[in-house]
Amino acid sequence: MNAEIVAIGSELLTPFRQDTNSLYLTEKLNQLGVEVIFKTIVGDSREHLRGSASLALSRADIVIFMGGLGPTEDDLTREAVAEALQLEVHRDPEIVAAIERRFASRGWKMSANNAKQGDVIAGAIVLPNPNGTAPGQWISGKYEGREKIIILLPGPPHELRALFDQQCMDRLRAKLPPQFIATRVVKVTGMGESQCDARVAPIYKRFTDVQTTILAGAGEIQLHLRTRADSLDAAQQRVDQVVEEIEAELGDCVFSDNGDSLEQIVGYYLQMRNATLAVAESCTGGLLAERITSVSGSSRYFLGGAVVYSNQLKTGFADVPADLIAKHGAVSREVAAALAEGIRKRCQGTLGVGITGVAGPTGGTPEKPVGLVFHALASDRGTEVIERNFPGDRKRIRWFATQQAMDMVRRKLM
Amino acid sequence: MNAEIVAIGSELLTPFRQDTNSLYLTEKLNQLGVEVIFKTIVGDSREHLRGSASLALSRADIVIFMGGLGPTEDDLTREAVAEALQLEVHRDPEIVAAIERRFASRGWKMSANNAKQGDVIAGAIVLPNPNGTAPGQWISGKYEGREKIIILLPGPPHELRALFDQQCMDRLRAKLPPQFIATRVVKVTGMGESQCDARVAPIYKRFTDVQTTILAGAGEIQLHLRTRADSLDAAQQRVDQVVEEIEAELGDCVFSDNGDSLEQIVGYYLQMRNATLAVAESCTGGLLAERITSVSGSSRYFLGGAVVYSNQLKTGFADVPADLIAKHGAVSREVAAALAEGIRKRCQGTLGVGITGVAGPTGGTPEKPVGLVFHALASDRGTEVIERNFPGDRKRIRWFATQQAMDMVRRKLM
Repeated sequence: MNAEIVAIGSELLTPFRQDTNSLYLTEKLNQLGVEVIFKTIVGDSREHLRGSASLALSRADIVIFMGGLGPTEDDLTREAVAEALQLEVHRDPEIVAAIERRFASRGWKMSANNAKQGDVIAGAIVLPNPNGTAPGQWISGKYEGREKIIILLPGPPHELRALFDQQCMDRLRAKLPPQFIATRVVKVTGMGESQCDARVAPIYKRFTDVQTTILAGAGEIQLHLRTRADSLDAAQQRVDQVVEEIEAELGDCVFSDNGDSLEQIVGYYLQMRNATLAVAESCTGGLLAERITSVSGSSRYFLGGAVVYSNQLKTGFADVPADLIAKHGAVSREVAAALAEGIRKRCQGTLGVGITGVAGPTGGTPEKPVGLVFHALASDRGTEVIERNFPGDRKRIRWFATQQAMDMVRRKLM
Repeated sequence: MNAEIVAIGSELLTPFRQDTNSLYLTEKLNQLGVEVIFKTIVGDSREHLRGSASLALSRADIVIFMGGLGPTEDDLTREAVAEALQLEVHRDPEIVAAIERRFASRGWKMSANNAKQGDVIAGAIVLPNPNGTAPGQWISGKYEGREKIIILLPGPPHELRALFDQQCMDRLRAKLPPQFIATRVVKVTGMGESQCDARVAPIYKRFTDVQTTILAGAGEIQLHLRTRADSLDAAQQRVDQVVEEIEAELGDCVFSDNGDSLEQIVGYYLQMRNATLAVAESCTGGLLAERITSVSGSSRYFLGGAVVYSNQLKTGFADVPADLIAKHGAVSREVAAALAEGIRKRCQGTLGVGITGVAGPTGGTPEKPVGLVFHALASDRGTEVIERNFPGDRKRIRWFATQQAMDMVRRKLM
C-alpha cells in the first residue's frame, strides 16, 4: 500500500513556513509498511484543493489531508474533499454541541463560525481531537472502483500527532497486511558521492528486495537500506547482509552503521581509548569545538581548545613560534602541525588537532587559494598533516575541514 | 504569473529529509511578483516524475524542477521532463568536456556515469552551475497551447541558489510584467513573540496594504513587510513608513532593519568603534566564536578565544583563579566575569566575553538547573554579567546563550 500526504494552507506556500507534519506521518506510515509516494502542498483555494484531492485519490491507496479544518472561511478541506469524492456534507449537531461545551468550559461563548467544524462527509467516522476543536475524519470506500482510505487531520502539530497516534494507527494496522520491515543506515566519509555509488551499486543492485537510498551531505554520504520480508528476522538478516557487504567494500571509509554522527563516533572512540582531545582552530573559527561539544557528555573527553584567528594568539595559546609563521605563512603545513602539537601540550591531551586554511571568500592567493586547508593531528607518536582543497563557499569549506579533522581522529583511534 | 515547484528525490519522501530549497525560491519568485500555487514532492520514479511534470505544466505558468540532475541511475529529471514535453534529449559533448576538466582540476578522473550530466533537452538553454557539475536547464515554449517557462535546477542548496540567482532571476524578470514590490525585514531581540506582537499590531493593522508576517526563532523575532504599488518609490515609501513606526515603538530591541544577522551587526559595530573582541566559552563550546567568524572579514575585529571546557583550561587560557572556581563553582556569576576579564587581557582585546552555564540534558542541579547561563562582558569600564534561564534542549540553550552574548556586545557599542 502507498500513501500521498496533502498539506493544506496558503502559509505553506510562503518563504517563511514549511510543512513538517509530513515527516512525522511518514515515519509512522513507514512503520506500518506504507510508502509515501507523493507529497503535495496546496493553498486555501477550493478549486486547487479539489483538484489535488482528485489527483491524490487517483494515484495513492491512502490519502492524508492535513490542515484546513478550522472555523474560518479559508478552511475548505471538508468541502473540497467531499466534492472530489462526490459525497455530501452534513452538519453533525453532536459535534457542534461538543465544541460549544469545550468553549463553555473555558468560560467563552462559541462564535457562530465554529459550527462549521461539525461538518462531516457522508459515511465518515469522526475522529475526536484530544487537543483541539476540529475533529478528524476517516473515510474508507471506493474511488474509481478501487479501495481507498481517506484521512482528514487538523494542521497544528500537537493536534495532528495525538489524533493520528490515538485514532489512526490501529485503524490502519487493521486494514493492512502484517508487515515486517527492517532498516539500517551506513555513514561514509572520505569519498565523493559518485565514487561511493560506483563501488556500492554492484552490491545493492544484487539485493533487489532491499531499497537503497544514497544521501550526500557536506563531507558525508549516507546509505539508507530498508527491506520487508515474511518475518522480522528475515528482513533484518537481509539488510544486515547488504550492510556487511558494503562495509567489506568501503572498509574504513564507513564510520557508522547504526545512524550515529561523526561527532558521536569520535566521542565513543575517545572514551573507549581513555583518550582526551584538544583543538586549535584558525579558519574553522570554533566550529570543530562546537560540533564536538554538541554531544552531551563530551566534557569526559574534550578538554577544550583555542580559536586562534590572529597570529599572536597562535603563539599565545598554542606556542606556535612567531618565526615559523613568518617563514611559512599562517596557512601552511608547518603551522598546522605546530598548532596541533602546541595545543596538545598546553592542554595535556592525548591528541591535539590544528586547523589552518583559507575559508574565503576573500584572502585567497594563487599559491594559497580559497579552500586550501591544512589539518594536523598530534599524538605521542608524532604528527600527521593532511592538505585539502575544498570546493564551495565559506560555510562549506569550514564544514568540510571539521569533517576531515574528525575523520583523522577517528582513524587514529580505530 | 504563478509557479509550481517540484522537488525530486526519494529521500524527500522519507522521514529524514525535507525540501528547504523551495523556501528560497519562493522568496525570490515573490520578489518578482510571482506567487507559488503548488509544491509537489516526488520520488525518483520516472513514471511519477513524468506525471508530476505534466500536471505542473497544465496548471502553472512557471514550473521549477529541483534535483535529480546528478550522475546516478536515480537521477531522472531530464528524461522525465523531456517526455512530459514530448521533446528529445541529446548529449552535449562540451558539457561533458567541462565536467571532465572540473574533475581533472582536482586531480580526479571523471567516472563514466558523470557523462549523463551532459544530457540536454531539445531547445533548452544550458545554465552553467558555478558550484557543481550538473548544469541547470531553461526551456521557454508552449505546452497545450500556453506559454510556459520550465527550469531544471540541481538539488544541493548551494548549487541551486547560486545558479538561480546568476542565471534565472534576470531571465525571469525579462519575461514578466514590471512589478513594483518593496520588502523590508526588521529583526528584534530581547523580547518574546506575543509581547512584540502586542506592541506592533496597532501599527501594522493601520497599513492594510502592507502584508506583515511575524516569525519567531530562537532568541530573535523577524517582522517581514511587503507591499506593491504603482511605482517602486511608492512601494518603498510605504514599507519604510511602517518600519519607521515599528522602530520608534520597539527602540533598541530592533537590531537590524535591512536583514543583517546579529553576527553581522556585531561586526559592523566593532569595526565602527575600532574595537576588537575575544571570547572564552564554556557551555557554548565554540558556538559563539563560530557564529562571529562565520562572517567573512571577521579577522579584522575578532581576535579569537578559548573553549574552556575543563576547569584547568579556564585557568590556563583565561587566568580564572582556581580558588574562585572552587568557591563559586564553574557555573557562576564570578567565573563568567573572570572568564571575560581574563580572555580580554590575554588577547589584548577591547572587549572580552565569558560564558558559563548548564547546557544539559545532564549536569543540572536544583540550584543550577539545565538552562542556567551566565554571560559576562568585560571592557575598560568594568564588567557586566547577565544571568538567564533558557528553556529548551542543549542546542537551543547554546544558541540562546550566544544570542544573549552578542546582544550584550551590540548594546555596549551602540
